[in-house]
Amino acid sequence: MKSYRKELWFNTTSRRQFINITDEVQQCLNESGIKEGLLLCNAMHITSSVFINDDESGLHHDMEVWLERLAPEKPYSQYRHNGFEDNADAHLKRTVMGREVVVAISAGKLDFGPWEQIFYGEFDGKRSKRVLVKIIGD
Amino acid sequence: MKSYRKELWFNTTSRRQFINITDEVQQCLNESGIKEGLLLCNAMHITSSVFINDDESGLHHDMEVWLERLAPEKPYSQYRHNGFEDNADAHLKRTVMGREVVVAISAGKLDFGPWEQIFYGEFDGKRSKRVLVKIIGD
Amino acid sequence: MKSYRKELWFNTTSRRQFINITDEVQQCLNESGIKEGLLLCNAMHITSSVFINDDESGLHHDMEVWLERLAPEKPYSQYRHNGFEDNADAHLKRTVMGREVVVAISAGKLDFGPWEQIFYGEFDGKRSKRVLVKIIGD
Repeated sequence: MKSYRKELWFNTTSRRQFINITDEVQQCLNESGIKEGLLLCNAMHITSSVFINDDESGLHHDMEVWLERLAPEKPYSQYRHNGFEDNADAHLKRTVMGREVVVAISAGKLDFGPWEQIFYGEFDGKRSKRVLVKIIGD
Repeated sequence: MKSYRKELWFNTTSRRQFINITDEVQQCLNESGIKEGLLLCNAMHITSSVFINDDESGLHHDMEVWLERLAPEKPYSQYRHNGFEDNADAHLKRTVMGREVVVAISAGKLDFGPWEQIFYGEFDGKRSKRVLVKIIGD
Repeated sequence: MKSYRKELWFNTTSRRQFINITDEVQQCLNESGIKEGLLLCNAMHITSSVFINDDESGLHHDMEVWLERLAPEKPYSQYRHNGFEDNADAHLKRTVMGREVVVAISAGKLDFGPWEQIFYGEFDGKRSKRVLVKIIGD
């Protein structure tokens, strides 16, 4: 069994942002030389997500509006977590969107359906944060 | 390390539907011959889910009502994604329910608690869509 | 490829409770002797969760309030599942928080970012319930 590990770093310009990281993850897979196995891709921070969905700007706007409805950023005082911080909403938004994805590796490729793309979802950005890619297989 | 891959196809009669796929997934495991490992089961489409919960029709009704409250289908115009499509709500519902499950394989069986069952959750159906089963182990 | 399996048991004193299980999961990893691989940790019950977030009591309070807003426990009669049971809300809360986490194992450690901690999330407690830890790797 082979294994591979790499960290991907992101520093967004806004508090919330979605970044398509599919090509970077495929590049990790290429470097690993693994043909059959499982790939884990997870946020290493608890106010960001890795998720799979559509690369369509209208949908990303809808997600932003929807997440703000489910777990609003403001007023900051509505959350007990916001004593020294202001990011309680980011913890909740990340919970909705998920920490991680596990992707099948088949014949050396991300074994995806036609529209599956991997995104980094940032909910408390403007600072350097990491995603972990771990691959095991043969 | 052994690996196994299979696609399961579904074509629901209604826009939204939950289908218990536990037996089909167990059949995949039987075919694989893998006794110890991990099984990934994921929707290959971004408007459907694979999730684990109870096979109880009352709960499934509650989930339908709940998902419609969290991410209503109509009016279609509330979502920017719905320019040429009408399925933005399906992308959001699938986000709540999740893309995938990872199941432990122990002694050749799905290593489940007493009530765990695997479901395909369709949120934009009436067309052929796929689920991927990938198993790795020995 | 090595594999390891252990069940962790919990019996909470209240209906809903979050328990930090990171040390117990690390102990499983130590017992396994696995240095590189993947670790699955999942609730074996469909009214509880395993998730990764911050070990901060204010945030846990915020999560309790938020989950009660998204999927209120009462009135019990609002859910069709609550014929002989009263735990439909627990099924929905667990859906939001997730069934499982998959964690990379690197150099014999849980490959975590600075604040990642694993929690058992109980939504229908006061009885013995289980979490499964499964590890595969070398």
